[in-house]
Amino acid sequence: MAAGWEAKLQLVQRHVRAFPDFPKKGILFRDICPILKDAAALKAVIDLFEEHVRNMYQHVDLIVGLDARGFLFGPLLAQRLGVGFVLVRKKGKLPGATVSVSYDLEYGKAEAEIQEDAVAPGQRVLLVDDLLATGGTLHAAAELMRKQQAEVLGCMVVIELKELNGIDKLKPHRVFSLLQY
Amino acid sequence: MAAGWEAKLQLVQRHVRAFPDFPKKGILFRDICPILKDAAALKAVIDLFEEHVRNMYQHVDLIVGLDARGFLFGPLLAQRLGVGFVLVRKKGKLPGATVSVSYDLEYGKAEAEIQEDAVAPGQRVLLVDDLLATGGTLHAAAELMRKQQAEVLGCMVVIELKELNGIDKLKPHRVFSLLQY
Repeated sequence: MAAGWEAKLQLVQRHVRAFPDFPKKGILFRDICPILKDAAALKAVIDLFEEHVRNMYQHVDLIVGLDARGFLFGPLLAQRLGVGFVLVRKKGKLPGATVSVSYDLEYGKAEAEIQEDAVAPGQRVLLVDDLLATGGTLHAAAELMRKQQAEVLGCMVVIELKELNGIDKLKPHRVFSLLQY
Repeated sequence: MAAGWEAKLQLVQRHVRAFPDFPKKGILFRDICPILKDAAALKAVIDLFEEHVRNMYQHVDLIVGLDARGFLFGPLLAQRLGVGFVLVRKKGKLPGATVSVSYDLEYGKAEAEIQEDAVAPGQRVLLVDDLLATGGTLHAAAELMRKQQAEVLGCMVVIELKELNGIDKLKPHRVFSLLQY
């Protein structure tokens, strides 16, 4: 790891807040809004993501981000790497021919969708979201990639909630997280 | 305008697709996904936004972006300017104390929300979204800023749908758009 990794990680960590009982009783919600509000903290997230990608992968074709908070980080990482960004959206938001899969949310059920031409067979993609909880949404995104015969190199999140074991659900895909709670 | 403005604008324009009858009959949907998928086109959007801001405003404190597609462009612009990014979300998504306003969508009704501490009185903010249609969402965001006594310098969008007169609804706030249809 390059010098500065730990300092950047601490900067990011100082900008995560915890709110008990949100969105419902018993859930401790990790709030990433302060990261976005601080230019240096957001830059640190993308620096660390970029460094991880450059250390781990020879070639990445696309960054795939999840609606809506994956949209906050994905395009920034994609621009750093000089590659395109693909949107995974909730059902009904994308025009044209689409591919969809349904999945269980941490607090309900939903359907994830991409445009049919969003990825080409054989393209090497990284999935980006803000947080890994049960892994339902990221698993759905990985399924969408599989359907389109793209290769998922791994998943990247700012925060991993370890007690929910999302990492198991996403196997064999690797998950990289900056912070673990 | 700096040399290259027109070339960048054309690059962006070539990456907007139109889909008739989406999300319902009679609506011509402008799809910005191809911009995101092309690193050069997305860079061009942010270059043009940045140039506009540097030409127009002495000082900006925060970029405010709208859920969900404003999240695609807002953090990129904020990082370019070295300022923070604030999320305007659909109701119920943000933890902690919040402020909300209801508004009419192009296709329905909704409520927009920010965290109470997202902006401070007197802060100078720019609102960013992908598209200006009726202006309902941007108007709600401007209202949220007014409630918190922040100063809205203007609104920035990639696409303006002129026939819907969103620009009138947002007066006296200025709207800057890259493409007009």
